[in-house]
Amino acid sequence: MSEFDLIQRFFTRATPGAILGVGDDAALLHVAEGMELAVSTDMLVSGTHFLPDADPFLLGHKTLAVNLSDLAAMGAVPRWATLALSLPAADTDWLQRFSTGFFALADEHGVELVGGDTTRGPLCLSVTIMGEVPRGKALRRSGAEAGDDIWVSGMLGHAALGLAHLQGRTELPEDVRVCCLAALHQPQPRVALGLALRDIASSAIDISDGLLADLGHILERSHAGAEVKFDEIPTGIARAIDEPLFRHCVLSGGDDYELCFTACAAKRSEIEAVAKRLGLPLTRIGKIVTGQGCTVRSAKDGVMTIKESGYDHFA
Amino acid sequence: MSEFDLIQRFFTRATPGAILGVGDDAALLHVAEGMELAVSTDMLVSGTHFLPDADPFLLGHKTLAVNLSDLAAMGAVPRWATLALSLPAADTDWLQRFSTGFFALADEHGVELVGGDTTRGPLCLSVTIMGEVPRGKALRRSGAEAGDDIWVSGMLGHAALGLAHLQGRTELPEDVRVCCLAALHQPQPRVALGLALRDIASSAIDISDGLLADLGHILERSHAGAEVKFDEIPTGIARAIDEPLFRHCVLSGGDDYELCFTACAAKRSEIEAVAKRLGLPLTRIGKIVTGQGCTVRSAKDGVMTIKESGYDHFA
Repeated sequence: MSEFDLIQRFFTRATPGAILGVGDDAALLHVAEGMELAVSTDMLVSGTHFLPDADPFLLGHKTLAVNLSDLAAMGAVPRWATLALSLPAADTDWLQRFSTGFFALADEHGVELVGGDTTRGPLCLSVTIMGEVPRGKALRRSGAEAGDDIWVSGMLGHAALGLAHLQGRTELPEDVRVCCLAALHQPQPRVALGLALRDIASSAIDISDGLLADLGHILERSHAGAEVKFDEIPTGIARAIDEPLFRHCVLSGGDDYELCFTACAAKRSEIEAVAKRLGLPLTRIGKIVTGQGCTVRSAKDGVMTIKESGYDHFA
Repeated sequence: MSEFDLIQRFFTRATPGAILGVGDDAALLHVAEGMELAVSTDMLVSGTHFLPDADPFLLGHKTLAVNLSDLAAMGAVPRWATLALSLPAADTDWLQRFSTGFFALADEHGVELVGGDTTRGPLCLSVTIMGEVPRGKALRRSGAEAGDDIWVSGMLGHAALGLAHLQGRTELPEDVRVCCLAALHQPQPRVALGLALRDIASSAIDISDGLLADLGHILERSHAGAEVKFDEIPTGIARAIDEPLFRHCVLSGGDDYELCFTACAAKRSEIEAVAKRLGLPLTRIGKIVTGQGCTVRSAKDGVMTIKESGYDHFA
């Protein structure tokens, strides 16, 4: 199979939302008047972000999901994506399953694949996602103010616990394992939540590097500090898990793709209504304060000492 | 050095042309009214597109150049780029030189780096370039009509000859070698030409996979055939080079990043004026005809038989 057949067979779909899609030197897109274009790029590499034998369907899902999560954190409506992939070989079975996983999630969010590149090399995937957000309405990292509540969506630490289980660093009970592996392999980008928070949240970020690292980005950009109550962080896991590992996964584990956002106390009932409407838990875990840095307290330990705040590819 | 320091030090520059640049979950861009957004993605992989010990300055240049070339072929003004890179290690000297090469070309074309991703893995680079083109004015592959002239910019085959020389498949005379290695390592995207051709050309493509392969894309999209005169193809090389290799590089060699375009005969003097204004040779090499496929004739061989039409990563 040639490179062009491969693109035609697995990656060329109708793109009614684009002026011109796959098949020319560039795609042509129309950004609606009054809208800003939100753009984000992520790269997933075999051996770094996933195991070489990862299920290609789930990998197709995750490759797009991590990008959708970035648009969710901006409150943008996802519209278009490009996909660059380097492959060791043109394995049609792998490509069929990868593209099926990719397009299943793309269809769910109305995203059109409008371009890309296919080349031979180590397995490496890069998606650029583009979306629209009304002028001035994007959720940035920089708007948190002292007194704001800090909220998170969903459950934290699951993806990191799932990875720890796969790596033999812990043995999760079956019910917990199922949730954690689902979080790791098939994260659900919180696009609807991002849209709902546009006029509510003062800042937002997606939790890809770990809660403390990502909240840290909000604090840095907002020139503020935070106080977080460890016991309030939603995990959905009662106990019976190695304590230091659990703590590490909840506070610093990456790959959760939940949103962390801030909002003033007056917005609490609106946020609770959003949670109800979306069927997605939204939990207050602390407060923005003046100063800098993040203090984490638990009933058991008092002020907790945190060594690593999140994943860093080069630290 | 942490991942965030690395991004801050080497890849964060002022982006006055963006609403929001590097440092949030997504960049925010404003596409001017009346403009379409042109978007293209390319991926370069060590061992496939360049040698592992490639000069990082030149690699930074080329990573962006191949993308700019795609926008040139659309007649779009380059505006913004994202860069995803996977690196075996955070080698500050390498990063300094790579980013210097990248930004030197970016500055030349007014392109702002607005986002990206940095991760550990095999050396792999992916740029998504975005530009603007007035509504309906983009140069597509699909507009060629029987009777149109076929034109190319610059000299063809140089990059492929340079590569053949580096691989020991031929020994180029010194003057030729200098041009060929420059074409291979530091291609000049024909952005100004693309803009000048907006109201002149009926179709355009950049020659990245080889003349016959890329002209073939125009023919396929335009439902037309072509007759090309081999002796008219500009190479700037007189003789004394292995004949089959020379022919192969000129017709099927990739990596030239010149433009191939079509225009009706009435546009000849306008095109010659563009060539003069830009100081860039533009040469008529044949004609679009009805039917399909491309026939190449030379004075010496009559109709030439071509085995491979261009580079294919998986054929």
